[in-house]
Amino acid sequence: ESFLVKKVWRFLKKAWDLGVDDPRIFFHCLKVGIALSIVSLFYYMRPLYDGFGGNAMWAVMTVVVVFENNVGASVCKCLNRICGTSLAGSLAFCVHYLASKSGHKFEPFIVGTSVFLLASVATFSRFIPSVKARFDYGAMIFILTFSLVSLSGYRVDELLDMAHERISTIIVGTSLCILVSMLICPIWAGGELHALINRNMDKLANSLEGCTGEFFKSNGGLGESNKESNEKLLGFKCILASKANEETMAKFALWEPAHGQFNYKHPWKQYLKIGASIRSCAYCLEALNACINSDHKIPESIMKHVSDTCLRVSSNASSVIRELAETIKTMKRSSTIDVLVGEMNSSVQELQEDLKSLPQNETPIIDMIPVLTCVSLLIEIANRVEAIVDA
Amino acid sequence: ESFLVKKVWRFLKKAWDLGVDDPRIFFHCLKVGIALSIVSLFYYMRPLYDGFGGNAMWAVMTVVVVFENNVGASVCKCLNRICGTSLAGSLAFCVHYLASKSGHKFEPFIVGTSVFLLASVATFSRFIPSVKARFDYGAMIFILTFSLVSLSGYRVDELLDMAHERISTIIVGTSLCILVSMLICPIWAGGELHALINRNMDKLANSLEGCTGEFFKSNGGLGESNKESNEKLLGFKCILASKANEETMAKFALWEPAHGQFNYKHPWKQYLKIGASIRSCAYCLEALNACINSDHKIPESIMKHVSDTCLRVSSNASSVIRELAETIKTMKRSSTIDVLVGEMNSSVQELQEDLKSLPQNETPIIDMIPVLTCVSLLIEIANRVEAIVDA
Repeated sequence: ESFLVKKVWRFLKKAWDLGVDDPRIFFHCLKVGIALSIVSLFYYMRPLYDGFGGNAMWAVMTVVVVFENNVGASVCKCLNRICGTSLAGSLAFCVHYLASKSGHKFEPFIVGTSVFLLASVATFSRFIPSVKARFDYGAMIFILTFSLVSLSGYRVDELLDMAHERISTIIVGTSLCILVSMLICPIWAGGELHALINRNMDKLANSLEGCTGEFFKSNGGLGESNKESNEKLLGFKCILASKANEETMAKFALWEPAHGQFNYKHPWKQYLKIGASIRSCAYCLEALNACINSDHKIPESIMKHVSDTCLRVSSNASSVIRELAETIKTMKRSSTIDVLVGEMNSSVQELQEDLKSLPQNETPIIDMIPVLTCVSLLIEIANRVEAIVDA
Repeated sequence: ESFLVKKVWRFLKKAWDLGVDDPRIFFHCLKVGIALSIVSLFYYMRPLYDGFGGNAMWAVMTVVVVFENNVGASVCKCLNRICGTSLAGSLAFCVHYLASKSGHKFEPFIVGTSVFLLASVATFSRFIPSVKARFDYGAMIFILTFSLVSLSGYRVDELLDMAHERISTIIVGTSLCILVSMLICPIWAGGELHALINRNMDKLANSLEGCTGEFFKSNGGLGESNKESNEKLLGFKCILASKANEETMAKFALWEPAHGQFNYKHPWKQYLKIGASIRSCAYCLEALNACINSDHKIPESIMKHVSDTCLRVSSNASSVIRELAETIKTMKRSSTIDVLVGEMNSSVQELQEDLKSLPQNETPIIDMIPVLTCVSLLIEIANRVEAIVDA
């Protein structure tokens, strides 16, 4: 039993740490609570209650379902919900009208087939990538509303009234959501994306330096402590896995209004491109890292011959990346970037010269070459990134 | 105007192709239609209608919201929905009871605070990774039901009746969903995962052969046509991006009952490990590919010296991977795998010998070395994968 208690305790501890690490989670939870409390006022205040009737539960439902972690996602869901509901509602009304005109006998069939057909088509549309990216939730709401309205239409006849009420409650719910999520400690998907890309660039620079440092440790001084360097290695692993995250953020960022340093038409897609470039650098690092961990032993002479230049290349590349990160952060074209890229290129050339003049008697250049490959790739990428960043 | 028509037409064409490529999408859409039609019968059949009352709409809603592409996801959502609803319902009932005992004056406050608190806590729990992976949807439903019940409890007093009806309609809806998704052309998340891993292995083998083939094209005959080899390159890019997909599938596969060749306790997590190994091979390939596309020119002599052995290494590695794919497909331990791995190892050693005996006068071994790095990594990975596959 005490084992169970311990387990639960550890679980709670971990959960709490999660929140302490990122206090915005707490804020988000409180925001959900606040939004729900405001909505529940609709139940308690008589006049409002009379206005919205039993449908007030739709407002509650909307808040719960639509409220998301960042503003973009909330706005996207809200608009989807409103559009889906109104579209489905009006379509269902048309079908209902047609069905009632065609006589009592055919009514169930018409309603039934239309539900079947439209549900299938809408489900299909959710598989189309361009629809899925933007209107996935809307399509679901469309099916839901359409089937609810056209089926309940069979029983209830005050369809128009109901539709009116339903849509007004949903609008109340959604606008409340948008307001709360934008006004109280807003978390912008765009800002998150911005920060993520920035963080990834820093991580990349650190990992690059860390890896090469590790590789030439025997020469290049004592190197850092094991734990710290491990953390740096972990850094680029994060980059490898962050693709899905970036895409979601970029998707939601498109829905956000102008805020802070970002305009409405901020080129979010560029972030994805930059992210992809960063990731391709990280792939190189992964390969490089594999070399570091392999157990080939490298003759001292060769090590000595190249290590200085290699370290210079990597530190130059890192400073290019850091400068780019800075550029992105401040969104101002950096004046020193060209100089830095030039330095990096010249150090790469130096390295190539070094290699040519290598004492040609041993092979395990093997373990060193990827550094070069990686670095030359880095230059390409750095150049590309530089060209991209005009935001 | 004709431009618009054309655009719409192209969009529809593309959507249709999507379905033709993967007919299961059509089946899925039809399944949703069928499930909805069956549910709508509840509205038309008098006796059933009387039993479930206006709450029958909850059955419709459940079907729409819960029905997912693969069986695992549907089951997961169904169970989440049932658990979330019952838990929240009973909790809300307790709170309501307490509130009504404490007198009319305090009731709104107690209800309000409990909604606020529980909503915040439940939202927080959705951020805990282990909860998020399994009960994300359940937590949302919990908040939804709790707030609906405790708020509506303030007005309606036949709470027990309502709860009973609500839960029975949801159970009807969910069991219908599970039945339809399992009985009519089921798509199993487990099967999908299995096929995905298999496909990825084949792609990896093809890419590996394609890349090395491309690299030594000048020697190794005419090589394949440009388009085909490009497709092979694309192959490993898919692997790089398939991580999120694999994880989702594995998550849902855990919820699936035994089916086909898979037992209930099929080691789905192993698939993730294998997937990760495949991906690390793909990272190497990415680096290798960068070498191929670089514009270093390699002296003929060196090319001739190693190309045969390199090609042999890569084809051996590919056949190991293919054999592993076969092993996974049939889930039987392959008898030839050890021989193949042995062959691969010996060819790698041969390559190392070759490198040692290289005419030591030119440097651009640069461009060739990654092949070796990659291959030696491959061996490691292949061995690890082999150890893993006992399923």
